[in-house]
Amino acid sequence: MQLISSSENKAIKLASSLKVRKYREATGMFLVEGWRSVHEVLGRPELIAAIIATEGSSKEVDWDRLSADKIVLVEPRLMRQICATENPQGIAAIVRKPQWSWEQVTAGDSLLIYLDRVSDPGNLGSILRTCWALGVNGVIMSRGCVDLYNPKVVRSTMGAILNLPVLPEAGTAEIVALQQSGYSVVVTDAEDGRPYYDEDFKVPTIIILGSEGHGVSWELKALSKATINIPVEPEVESLNVAAACAIITAEARRQRQEGREH
Amino acid sequence: MQLISSSENKAIKLASSLKVRKYREATGMFLVEGWRSVHEVLGRPELIAAIIATEGSSKEVDWDRLSADKIVLVEPRLMRQICATENPQGIAAIVRKPQWSWEQVTAGDSLLIYLDRVSDPGNLGSILRTCWALGVNGVIMSRGCVDLYNPKVVRSTMGAILNLPVLPEAGTAEIVALQQSGYSVVVTDAEDGRPYYDEDFKVPTIIILGSEGHGVSWELKALSKATINIPVEPEVESLNVAAACAIITAEARRQRQEGREH
Repeated sequence: MQLISSSENKAIKLASSLKVRKYREATGMFLVEGWRSVHEVLGRPELIAAIIATEGSSKEVDWDRLSADKIVLVEPRLMRQICATENPQGIAAIVRKPQWSWEQVTAGDSLLIYLDRVSDPGNLGSILRTCWALGVNGVIMSRGCVDLYNPKVVRSTMGAILNLPVLPEAGTAEIVALQQSGYSVVVTDAEDGRPYYDEDFKVPTIIILGSEGHGVSWELKALSKATINIPVEPEVESLNVAAACAIITAEARRQRQEGREH
Repeated sequence: MQLISSSENKAIKLASSLKVRKYREATGMFLVEGWRSVHEVLGRPELIAAIIATEGSSKEVDWDRLSADKIVLVEPRLMRQICATENPQGIAAIVRKPQWSWEQVTAGDSLLIYLDRVSDPGNLGSILRTCWALGVNGVIMSRGCVDLYNPKVVRSTMGAILNLPVLPEAGTAEIVALQQSGYSVVVTDAEDGRPYYDEDFKVPTIIILGSEGHGVSWELKALSKATINIPVEPEVESLNVAAACAIITAEARRQRQEGREH
């Protein structure tokens, strides 16, 4: 372990830079803040580049799974410089982005979620957490979505970001390829289509959810053969995209579960 | 209309005080910020105590439904003092809390949601929006929940806070009374009970959702005759309470819709 007091230290400079998407993309790393999230990361030690902790915090951690040279002790003021949260908890981790391949995610009779320009980090975090819990095989994100490794997303996903396969920067071409390989492409719409519970989710399926403001793009609507909606009260405009994702994904899981039992 | 430039003005002082729960409770009012939310409020003019706008913003509003003495024009710096958001949009409203009676909310074969110490404002906002969209008849909140009129809740609920009946400050006694009057009291649990889709929601039902950290209290678990869960992947601890609410409420709505069609 090393005790760092200079903000010019390499690990400190790297950690601080990871607030900015450009540097997360250049380094392939992101920052995880706080006890609960760092605890999740310790379950994937191969992804850890460094753990940064104040001296007080470091005493409460069981470091057995980690080699000493990966642990950086810092003064509390450096912790505040590194973290995006206003009152950091005294522990953070520099983590390598998990890597997933297209083949891995789309193999078998997968249930996939495609996010079309979902821009709110809270919504993305909530969607990833729900998808992980409900056994979605992978989440595919369009260009124009909020960055998967945005500090707010990381904070709200808990373990999902480490364990749920996510493929960013995909587009219409990838959806067409899935459709040609036998996937049912299901578009969600606030006004059009049939109730989600009348759709068959037991086949390989990709469910397309739209942005908070604009819904699903017309290109994706045009190529899909199935449109579904969630029936809501007439005076209400629409559901939040994270709530819609939870409702539809739970129905898909239920159908698949019943299919297995019969 | 009056143009105000002093932070000592009564309307300005009232509006600024509404950031604090104590003053919201003392006055029975709360603050609504931004275009989209104020637009919703204009649909309920009887609840409006005052609209506060910068001169530039005021020109873009159709004030027909509101008497001139309810409109307060202010300098932009006063707007920043009033609002909880960092970059206010130039419009806000002082709104009277809607009043709902216990009888109104529990009459008929209602579907009700009870929130047991839900403390995260984002979760409460999302739950209210979902419940409104899915036709829940009322939301009942325990003591210890985040304040319904917390600025973050108000911002994330959109119209729900004005139109969905909510009864705060309820407890076990109210749940017992509902049970005695024929309600099915259904407790959600991360580990126990049967899958939510095996529960009958067509009878008058109150669904109890627990706090993010601790779940439903043992008193409520003890008095309930039905426990349900949402099946999740074994390595995942639990779903977010707002996602759980969306999934269970959507199932209840579906059952009730099917009941009506047959």
